[in-house]
This record gives sequence, structure tokens and C-alpha cells, in this order.
Amino acid sequence: MKALRFEQGELKLGEIERPERPDEALVRVVLAGICNTDLEIMRGYADYSGTLGHEFVGIVERSPDPAQVGRRVVGEINAGCGDCDLCRRGDPRHCLKRTVLGIHNRDGAFAEYVSLPPENLLIVPDQVSDRQAVFTEPLAAACEILDQVEIGPAHRVAVIGDGKLGQLIARVLFRTGCDLVLIGKHADKLELAAIAGVNTLDLKNLTISQSSRFDYVVEASGAAAGLDLALKLVRPRGTIILKSTFHGAVQLDTSRIVVDEISIVGSRCGRFEGALALLAEDLFDLEPLISGTYDLTQGIEAMNDASQPGKLKVLLCTQPAIF
Amino acid sequence: MKALRFEQGELKLGEIERPERPDEALVRVVLAGICNTDLEIMRGYADYSGTLGHEFVGIVERSPDPAQVGRRVVGEINAGCGDCDLCRRGDPRHCLKRTVLGIHNRDGAFAEYVSLPPENLLIVPDQVSDRQAVFTEPLAAACEILDQVEIGPAHRVAVIGDGKLGQLIARVLFRTGCDLVLIGKHADKLELAAIAGVNTLDLKNLTISQSSRFDYVVEASGAAAGLDLALKLVRPRGTIILKSTFHGAVQLDTSRIVVDEISIVGSRCGRFEGALALLAEDLFDLEPLISGTYDLTQGIEAMNDASQPGKLKVLLCTQPAIF
Repeated sequence: MKALRFEQGELKLGEIERPERPDEALVRVVLAGICNTDLEIMRGYADYSGTLGHEFVGIVERSPDPAQVGRRVVGEINAGCGDCDLCRRGDPRHCLKRTVLGIHNRDGAFAEYVSLPPENLLIVPDQVSDRQAVFTEPLAAACEILDQVEIGPAHRVAVIGDGKLGQLIARVLFRTGCDLVLIGKHADKLELAAIAGVNTLDLKNLTISQSSRFDYVVEASGAAAGLDLALKLVRPRGTIILKSTFHGAVQLDTSRIVVDEISIVGSRCGRFEGALALLAEDLFDLEPLISGTYDLTQGIEAMNDASQPGKLKVLLCTQPAIF
Repeated sequence: MKALRFEQGELKLGEIERPERPDEALVRVVLAGICNTDLEIMRGYADYSGTLGHEFVGIVERSPDPAQVGRRVVGEINAGCGDCDLCRRGDPRHCLKRTVLGIHNRDGAFAEYVSLPPENLLIVPDQVSDRQAVFTEPLAAACEILDQVEIGPAHRVAVIGDGKLGQLIARVLFRTGCDLVLIGKHADKLELAAIAGVNTLDLKNLTISQSSRFDYVVEASGAAAGLDLALKLVRPRGTIILKSTFHGAVQLDTSRIVVDEISIVGSRCGRFEGALALLAEDLFDLEPLISGTYDLTQGIEAMNDASQPGKLKVLLCTQPAIF
């Protein structure tokens, strides 16, 4: 089968064996999304080698769970060992032995087929289109914030970053009724958030006064400079939620964290159920967040396109006949 | 009056005017303690210029509150504006306009007299000696951790740093019944904690295995490398409590914070009431934590002594007649 792989520091479209694990489900990928993490992997993040891709929607071809066969699914990206305390409690997201789809020791979804444990798959409700369902993974990551901190109408909240993830986070947090602003650098992306009802602010118009500090600042810029800006924006005793993963280290004045008793909360994958429920309610129009759709065979071009400034979600379509 | 001052990058014993603020209490300092922050100020931390010192016990000479006159007191170090939301709620510790004793815009306690608002002063119970009472401020900073996070018998906790603050934190956390270890580099300091009942571990014997990760890691080493070690020790979804303030920046792999959803909580000053109550119960023998006592006139020598490796608390005695 065709697969878009990152091997020995190089991105290539390869022809590899179709996965054949009898203990896992085989999913024919319909649509996959390029995430900033995929681009960071090409810069050295996570030291990964293999098929890229962890956002997808597809059709189950075979599975140890017969009820899944023929169904349209999305898949949670962390596959735990099944044996440790975390896995037994039903949350393999932090299992120390886990594999992670397209990120750690497990071939990803930029391929004609992908293999995952049956318990990782969730059926997509009929009313959710493929082009919405492909957002389930990043939307769940946005929802994870509300599983970690309590944000409500009493709070002033800033989201830094008007990219793919920042856009989803802003839409999710907007629903809490908090006093929200999305801070970004791209007029067209900020406009998309504004259409969705979110207050926006161009970074170049930002003035940091002591009185304008925020209770919560979500750092989703994907850039090293984002945390420094978050520290400037958050109020004493406020909380920064860190979302960006990238290759490299950040210079940090930790004394500011101590003196002002700031909390920093790392935030990664969320549960899919909540994200699918939001999509099923048809609350967000995510179509404007799609910058382009490519055939899997144009995968290298698609990755290049996704890495251009100003781009939002770029999709890979692996079953062109469907579209 | 005599005062130990840091001015234009130089430590000097000067002769300055006695403070005369009718709205504040005048306290004759009896005993003052040298903190790591005082040493960091001499390296450029907080960009402070003036009389050093923020840990003290003394006798009130005059005060707008007549009930305080003649009483033995300790003093909270943050003096708020009195007008903002935080001050009105009775907590000036994060008032944006605050002065901080010996750290920010307010002359400190390494002097014959110190001036503070009457509401900053707390009466020292009779059964607490001067040499115990002088630990109130750093002990309150140790107690602050338990105001911020819930630590109990179910938790595995590591404290990094066997210095002055680490020793107090270990003693306070030990009382929660948690599974505690103090990690340090100095055999004699670790021995002091062991005598107080605390499990200790020499850094050179530390092996970091995935199974030995801690629910909470308190970083009190005072060194830039401490946070990196804390990140290695904390379990996924665990919490790091940051206590060290120092001059300079830290290189940080923030992706580890995101991927493992670590929380980092900055922690500074605590409330004095709880610390005084602990001292009044005579739960800790803090005398072994005192490395030396100097007359204020030997202040430069005392600061030099306090900066030597292996030293714990060095005291300045401003009323030699008493001892």
C-alpha cells in the first residue's frame, strides 16, 4: 500500500506492506489531517521514523470486534500496554509503554490503511461528515483543557496562536461564556475566528498593561516565543495552559513563575467522546479551517503546503473515488 | 543607625537615618536571618538597591497600633497598596503596587530598626525563642505549598535541595504522612533531615527509573539545574512545585511538560499564622539549621559565610547585649 513516511531524515511516498495484526483492527483511511506535530517531527521532534499522521477518519475492514466491521471510525492515538495501572483504569494516554500513532513506535495514518487496537476506535455519528470527523483528534485536544482547569463566565482568557489548534481551542472555550480573546498574527485567520463569534486581537496591537492580565492564557502558537508572551499576559496566581509541542528548548525566567505564583499546566490529548458529541451537535463550521485537500500520492506537496505561513488544516484524501 | 546595604553593586555596612514613618510601626530588630534571596540579590536578582534582609524578629518601639508597642513581633514582607482587590481581600502578597521588605522598594531588616505597616506584624508567642521565631518567614514559605496543592499519605513526594529552605519544606511535608524523600548533595545536611525523621537520598546515588517517578516534586535547590531534575523525577500528570528564585534564565524542554501533562506551580510567600502555630507547638528543632550568628557590624563577613557551600542559616544579631 502507499504510505507517506519520514525515514532517515527524509519525507518520502513509499510502497509498504499492508498492516496485518490479528489483535488489531484494520482501517481503510478515507481522510487524514496534517498537524503541526507532523511538521515538527520533520524538524526532529519525538525522534520518530515511520509513516506519519495521527488524525484520520476511515472504514473498518476487519477487526477482532465484529461489530466494528464496515463502520466509519476515528481512532484515539495512544495505544497502551493494557497491563499497567493507567491502562487498567481505562486511560492509556500516559501509559509509559504506549505507542502513539504516527509519533512513537507505531505507523501512522498517512497511508491507505492503518492498524489500531479495536478499543481505540470510535464510531462516527452519521450526521458528522468526513471533513468534520477528521477534526476529532485536534478538537479532543482542545476539549482536554476543560478536563484540566475550570474555565467559566467569571474568567478572562487569552488564547495565543491563530493556527489550526488555536482556532479549535478558541471555539471550545468560547462556549464556556468566558471573556475570551484570540491573539494572533494573521488577519485572515483572526477573521475566521471573529466570524465564529470570538474576540480577536492582532499581536501587533497588543499592549501589555498590568491591569489587562488574564486569569488563563492558553499557549497554542507552536513557537518558542509563545510561553514568554503567556508569562507577560497572565495575572499573578493565574494559569498558563501549554499546548505547543516543538523540537528544541525554551529560555525561561522561572523566578517570575515563583514570585507571581503562576501555574503552568501541560495539556495534550483529550478524550474523543466529547469531541464527537460536539461535532454531532453541529456547533462548529470547521470547513473554513481547511486550507486544502490533496490526494495521498501528492503527500509531499501537501506537507510542503501545510508548512507555509498562513495555512490552516491541510487534508490528505486516500480514497479519491469517494470525493 | 547601622544597616547592611547593597548599593551600586556593592555590599556595605552604612550609617543611615532611622526610619520615621508615622503610618508605620518602628521595630527594633533583635535577630535577622540571611536567605538565599539576599545572596541572589547580590548577583543581580530583583534589581534591588537598599538595606537587605526580610527575615527578622524584633521589639516594637512605636506603632499606630498602641497594642503592639513593646511586643515581640515578626513581620510579613509584602506591603500592599491597601486599595486594590487583592489588598481589600486581605492578601497583599500579589498586590501589583506592593513593596517587599529588603527585596523591592523597601529597606530591609539587616539594620538596627525596620519600619513596616502595623498590619504586617504578628505577635510571637512567648514559648517561641528568638532563634526559632527568626525562621517564621521561610517556614511560612514552606507551608505555602500545602495551601496550593493537596499532599497526603497517598502521595510520593521528592524535595530537591538540602539547603535552608529544602530542610524546612521537608519537615513541613513530612507531617502530612506522605512518602517523602529529600534529595541533596551534602552528607551533613542530609543527616540533619534524617535526624528529623525524613528519608534522604544523596544525588549521586539517584537513579531515575520510570517506576520511581513522583506525584509531587518540590524544587528548592536554588539552582537552574533543579527544574531539569524535577522534570526527570515527576510522573506523567504529576506536579512540580517551584520554590527557587535566582538571577538568570533556565533552558527548558517544554514539550515534555505538554506530552506528559505536567503541572508546574510557582510558590513563594506563605501566611505567618500557620508557621507561628507550628513553632509554638515546638514541633521542629530548628537550632541545628543555624550555621552561625554574627553581630550586625560583621554583616559583610556574615554574608560571605552564608554564601559558602555547606552553610545553612546564618543569623545577624543586632542587639548584642541580649545574647
